[in-house]
Amino acid sequence: MTTNEKLSALREGMKNENIDAYIIALADPHISEYLPDHYKNIEWISGFTGSAGTLVITAEFAGLWTDSRYFVQAAEQLKDSGFELVKLKAQGAAEYANWLTVTLSKENTVAFDGKLVPVTIAQQLKLDLEPKGIKIKGDIDLISSLWTDRSDLPNSKAYLLPDKVTGKSTSEKIKEIQQILKKKGASTHLVSSLDDISWIFNIRGADVKCNPVVLSFALFNADKVWLFIDAEKLSDENKKELRDAGVSISPYQDIEKAIKSIPVNSSVYIDPKRNCYSYYTLIPESCKKIEGTNPSTFLKAIKNATELSHTRETMVKDGVALSRFFYWLEKHLGKEKIAETTVALKLKEFRAEQNGFVGESFDTIAGYKEHGALPHYKATQESDSILKTNGLLLIDSGGQYTSGTTDITRVVSLGEPTNDERKDYTLVLKAMIEGCTTHFPKGTRGYQIDAITRKPLWDHFRNYGHGTGHGVGFFLNVHEGPHVFNAANIDIAIETNMITSIEPGLYREGHYGIRIENLVVSQLDENTIFGQFISFETLTVCYIETSLIDKSLLEDYHIDWLNEYHNEVYKKISPNLNEEERTWLRIKTEAI
Amino acid sequence: MTTNEKLSALREGMKNENIDAYIIALADPHISEYLPDHYKNIEWISGFTGSAGTLVITAEFAGLWTDSRYFVQAAEQLKDSGFELVKLKAQGAAEYANWLTVTLSKENTVAFDGKLVPVTIAQQLKLDLEPKGIKIKGDIDLISSLWTDRSDLPNSKAYLLPDKVTGKSTSEKIKEIQQILKKKGASTHLVSSLDDISWIFNIRGADVKCNPVVLSFALFNADKVWLFIDAEKLSDENKKELRDAGVSISPYQDIEKAIKSIPVNSSVYIDPKRNCYSYYTLIPESCKKIEGTNPSTFLKAIKNATELSHTRETMVKDGVALSRFFYWLEKHLGKEKIAETTVALKLKEFRAEQNGFVGESFDTIAGYKEHGALPHYKATQESDSILKTNGLLLIDSGGQYTSGTTDITRVVSLGEPTNDERKDYTLVLKAMIEGCTTHFPKGTRGYQIDAITRKPLWDHFRNYGHGTGHGVGFFLNVHEGPHVFNAANIDIAIETNMITSIEPGLYREGHYGIRIENLVVSQLDENTIFGQFISFETLTVCYIETSLIDKSLLEDYHIDWLNEYHNEVYKKISPNLNEEERTWLRIKTEAI
Repeated sequence: MTTNEKLSALREGMKNENIDAYIIALADPHISEYLPDHYKNIEWISGFTGSAGTLVITAEFAGLWTDSRYFVQAAEQLKDSGFELVKLKAQGAAEYANWLTVTLSKENTVAFDGKLVPVTIAQQLKLDLEPKGIKIKGDIDLISSLWTDRSDLPNSKAYLLPDKVTGKSTSEKIKEIQQILKKKGASTHLVSSLDDISWIFNIRGADVKCNPVVLSFALFNADKVWLFIDAEKLSDENKKELRDAGVSISPYQDIEKAIKSIPVNSSVYIDPKRNCYSYYTLIPESCKKIEGTNPSTFLKAIKNATELSHTRETMVKDGVALSRFFYWLEKHLGKEKIAETTVALKLKEFRAEQNGFVGESFDTIAGYKEHGALPHYKATQESDSILKTNGLLLIDSGGQYTSGTTDITRVVSLGEPTNDERKDYTLVLKAMIEGCTTHFPKGTRGYQIDAITRKPLWDHFRNYGHGTGHGVGFFLNVHEGPHVFNAANIDIAIETNMITSIEPGLYREGHYGIRIENLVVSQLDENTIFGQFISFETLTVCYIETSLIDKSLLEDYHIDWLNEYHNEVYKKISPNLNEEERTWLRIKTEAI
Repeated sequence: MTTNEKLSALREGMKNENIDAYIIALADPHISEYLPDHYKNIEWISGFTGSAGTLVITAEFAGLWTDSRYFVQAAEQLKDSGFELVKLKAQGAAEYANWLTVTLSKENTVAFDGKLVPVTIAQQLKLDLEPKGIKIKGDIDLISSLWTDRSDLPNSKAYLLPDKVTGKSTSEKIKEIQQILKKKGASTHLVSSLDDISWIFNIRGADVKCNPVVLSFALFNADKVWLFIDAEKLSDENKKELRDAGVSISPYQDIEKAIKSIPVNSSVYIDPKRNCYSYYTLIPESCKKIEGTNPSTFLKAIKNATELSHTRETMVKDGVALSRFFYWLEKHLGKEKIAETTVALKLKEFRAEQNGFVGESFDTIAGYKEHGALPHYKATQESDSILKTNGLLLIDSGGQYTSGTTDITRVVSLGEPTNDERKDYTLVLKAMIEGCTTHFPKGTRGYQIDAITRKPLWDHFRNYGHGTGHGVGFFLNVHEGPHVFNAANIDIAIETNMITSIEPGLYREGHYGIRIENLVVSQLDENTIFGQFISFETLTVCYIETSLIDKSLLEDYHIDWLNEYHNEVYKKISPNLNEEERTWLRIKTEAI
């Protein structure tokens, strides 16, 4: 079926069910950011492959609401699909809810599949639409019957990580969560989010591309914990280990029954952002729902000493792989055919040589020239550019290692850069250094770091449409909360030992994109009469292209920072390179 | 009665009414920041004169919850009062609610006078306390019967401002508000906040110290408006003008009856932060309450061209007064007795020489040496320091002119400054310049400007405990919303033509305080492919002490900004000075 045929079939289904608007969200019952193929509804029906967006379909209109990162990509992918691009003003906002209130009339019905919609979105829809007399049906799945060649649910093997890798045992983590639940007055707690579950049970798998997680649910009460997981995924030994840690193992599909069986009048702690609406509505009506962020999300974000020490080692491994890659690129560019897709493959090859490499932490973005201006570009067969000996190449990539997760962006110039490129690049670098070197009082929020990072670009009337940074897991999801560095008013203080990316950028549509990204970890700094200060330790270990720098735009302290950083990079990476590579890296890391 | 006797009497009253905890908020039925004497309950019972704080009294404990601006002042004023200081972690937070949940038991009763408590606080108390089984009584006034020598309500005359001063007629403003109400689906709208009312009706008065407002309420419906005001305050001519603008005038005390008479099933738009709980509960139960910021608060914050042009002229007048004052101070210091209170008096004298001066926009803060470390210090007879020919003097003051409101802080050194003083001063100046010179994209929030302003201090592990800036009215309250520059996650974008202060500081308890404050107005700047940018025009016109500057801590662009600013200051102020003063100002504004 073409997307147009699928859309017609869906509209037929809407007619039969008396539905005036159907919403398809990008989610699964675990509210994952990256979805198993089984749940890629939006890609199947519209062709859009981005990681954020919502489809809304009425009889007259079919639209994809997505944010500025995907405007260009969506416009291309939706061509002739029957779907139109609707540009979101704010990333992640459910602006289509407002559109629906204006478009629909009293007595109209809006429907969606509540298993694939987070509680928060369903609640907002109710809040926005019901006062206008619009009805909401949250249990309508119109896709399954149409999508005949749909993939099965993934069934990869899972495994437990030893405490010497995670730094904290499952039983300790469970105890911590139960103590928090007690404080919150909750007797039951449902966890659907896969990275939370992976962290709690020190379990990893391969059910979702790039995220080493396992399809599962968890249910806590005051003194018991159930893990709902396909029993075949785990070895008998692992199952015994879990049971020894006090975990009861139940079949994956039993979660619905278990939620329905929560004792009447319980207090259920539930994260409305990380649970699907359907399961939320299964909680017995007599129960009191306490809504809030999963306790494990906070605990997970603050890395322990073991995780940090593994992460530091992992950064060196990743830096070695990247250095070898960039050396290879310089040596072979112009001599053989290298496409954007080659970059992704080669990078993966170099990473795979490193001990403990499991896979990519997200799809590599290798954007040559104008493709670099698409912040979340992924080369396809049709788009795949061949690299020439000129222009900018932006590479944003990361690895999953059993010892940590990486995420790094670098830009290199494949020929002599223009003055405009130099200026843009230097301002982005300046922004990144400003973010990385900031000292700030305890209690500072991510939006404050965001502003400080952007300032060097604002000073020159430049800006970027995405956030400045995101939390990063330990051998887990490359995006994790609760903290984030962006302009939104998210009231989460930066605690010590949180890993975050700092990745300002600049995008000139049709020309090039620039983004420079390091990971940092927040650490205690001076304690003065003005309070306890926190600052960042830079974790990423990889040279930053200096041929693109216009020194006149930097202050001395930016130059000092860069030279010192390069000194460290050389010291840590060079022992792992061969003679030729080492000579090359010495030049790349020379003081400017 | 001593404060201790008053406290005992209050506890007696609590016992009689079976109240376990009594809350006294700093508010009046208009939720004013500055209170008429009649409503100064907290000062009467505890002796604390600060502009922010809440008393909570139980049988065992009596505490004042206030923020870091008032820690030192409160500690002094509460000495032997029977009240203890409880330090707030976050300015404005109702942290005592949490204390009450921990301190009280099930079936205990918390009471307050709902006329003197904003809706938001009452709602939060209910949310926090009722689930614990604690009862809340919102209609208990235990003060009036004890406070026998209480002042009457103020009865100053009021007057209307002509459209050539306000730039917009009352009937236009009313129409704008009614259009917004229609959009929000509201048929009725209650306005209790005096600055909102003053703006809407272009009315001014003198009922509250420093704020040129008039005790009144306003009630809107789709096509009518009522102003509740003591009829004697207005001339017949003014009353006619109001009626011609479509305003019905009712007696002040009729507001309760009017609220009770709102037609059943109305939709009432009400600002929960700017209305008292008692009046909120008077709204008929059948009505739907739509809660949100008063439309007039947004409209008022965006100054029109007339207001801005008057304000610019007013800044010159205020700058002339300040220049004359500082010249006088330099000439007389060491030769006659000058106390902190003299500073306030003299400043007022110089301001009073200016055309259109009405009064101070807040109590002058003249803090010599260690008194400067109290951000909201007001000299009393006991504390009044005599100025010597050494040490820092901080002066934060402002004027109400019929042509605008001013607010400015300057620090001068009365002798040879120390290196520490120079360093602190220069970093504060750098912070102020960073804030004033920032360009930022449309949509930027106040918390982003706050972070950028603080950075030069953070870089040196310094910080200040108050916000960076506040909105300022046009011949109205010196503090006005909805925008604010502070670290809290307040989701209000900076629009063009908003007036805001930028006032970073640094406080060394027991030694000195530094704060430098200019007012700025947001203006459109460049429109690039990265979006529309906004920047600030500096409004305040007064030299900034340069003898305290350590140039080595500034970048060239800070120095350029200061020199250019001083050039402007001299150009605008000097024509209004005499020869001697002019010569003096030329030196004060010399390029560094």
